[in-house]
Amino acid sequence: MASRNLYTCLSPALLDLYDISNSVVVIIDVLRATSTIATALHNGASSVIPVATVQQCIELGESVGGITAGERDGKVAEGLTYGNSPFEYPRSFIENKVLVLTTTNGTKLLHMALDRGAPEIITGSFPNLSAVCEHLIASDKDVLLGCAAWKDRVNLEDTMFAGAVISTIKSHFNILCDSSAIAENIYLEAGEDRFGFMKNRNATHYHRLMKYGLEKDIRYCLTADGANVLPIFKGDRLVIA
Amino acid sequence: MASRNLYTCLSPALLDLYDISNSVVVIIDVLRATSTIATALHNGASSVIPVATVQQCIELGESVGGITAGERDGKVAEGLTYGNSPFEYPRSFIENKVLVLTTTNGTKLLHMALDRGAPEIITGSFPNLSAVCEHLIASDKDVLLGCAAWKDRVNLEDTMFAGAVISTIKSHFNILCDSSAIAENIYLEAGEDRFGFMKNRNATHYHRLMKYGLEKDIRYCLTADGANVLPIFKGDRLVIA
Repeated sequence: MASRNLYTCLSPALLDLYDISNSVVVIIDVLRATSTIATALHNGASSVIPVATVQQCIELGESVGGITAGERDGKVAEGLTYGNSPFEYPRSFIENKVLVLTTTNGTKLLHMALDRGAPEIITGSFPNLSAVCEHLIASDKDVLLGCAAWKDRVNLEDTMFAGAVISTIKSHFNILCDSSAIAENIYLEAGEDRFGFMKNRNATHYHRLMKYGLEKDIRYCLTADGANVLPIFKGDRLVIA
Repeated sequence: MASRNLYTCLSPALLDLYDISNSVVVIIDVLRATSTIATALHNGASSVIPVATVQQCIELGESVGGITAGERDGKVAEGLTYGNSPFEYPRSFIENKVLVLTTTNGTKLLHMALDRGAPEIITGSFPNLSAVCEHLIASDKDVLLGCAAWKDRVNLEDTMFAGAVISTIKSHFNILCDSSAIAENIYLEAGEDRFGFMKNRNATHYHRLMKYGLEKDIRYCLTADGANVLPIFKGDRLVIA
């Protein structure tokens, strides 16, 4: 029997319920932070520094000479140069640059996991699904799949991604966790047409992004292995493991 | 288009995210508090008073001359007389009596909803599924399906019951809530054999109760309409609406 445990935390507001002192914490913010992080690193960014506020983003961007990026309410935040779309970061633009990225939900969860002493933090999204799964199987640690959610409300896409990971790696772990059972169920129920599932289930983030004409982003962020690298948090930034 | 909103809150730790100032809050603690509450009232209990602690249960039980009941870690709590099983409350025993019941998760959520000013609080469980649905359709208020969960961790059975309600009444409400989409999905996926679903999905509470030989309780608590009354909170207690 497997000796490592896997849990799924469906909202940052529930993180305190889980012991993560021996866990790899996977930060999941499918639309769009962790998909964009994987994409930027895959396309050659030297690192991605996640920060909580626009002000920190501006200050750190200046001090490290990095690209400042982030959105608030679906628009590039005032004072920053780029947004949260993975399509803003092709190799021709982002290679060898530092991306300083402020996002609301994903960054918050990452810093919470850091404060709570997680020994390892990585980011996960469909574009780097396989890299995440391979790493978790090869690791000797427990796993906490941490959904960034939306302002602490559970969301469909992060839950679905947690389910994708569980579905792939479950034979390597003890899983006695109803949230994991729920997540896997959602993933399996969605099937291959995850975009259609989000639409048919009236997912809040589907509406939020479609309103801004971002169907292309949603489709990309729900597609497996388009930027299959493993972002790992070292010091103050995410780099390829 | 429906003008009332319905939300699902998967854990008491998330309750603060929802505006419940114009909502019927449905307290859901399928295994076993709200199933037992419906059963006791259905069998003629004059009221059920939910309290948070064993000490409150003892004191209130004495002052109202009621039956004191509650469990901690699956056993009748020290100082109380009865437990949380619906089978402890047949009509021959409970008719015309007051049941003072202390439970951990359901009572906590009920008092949270009360403190936050919910204008109406009812309890829901499979044994009174139809009564809950009929009431919510007939009401003029928004709906918050509040899962009591297990020590704030999301659980499968409360989520599944929320999904059962949603599946039945959704045409009467606006539902833009991913937790509701997830809940309905789980309910539909479970199908008629909810006991088998709990077992196959390795639900934590399934194991917790099976360890104490309570398969009969689980099966009863997952069966629709065995005690089809509507418990509503008035003053300090639950009575049939």
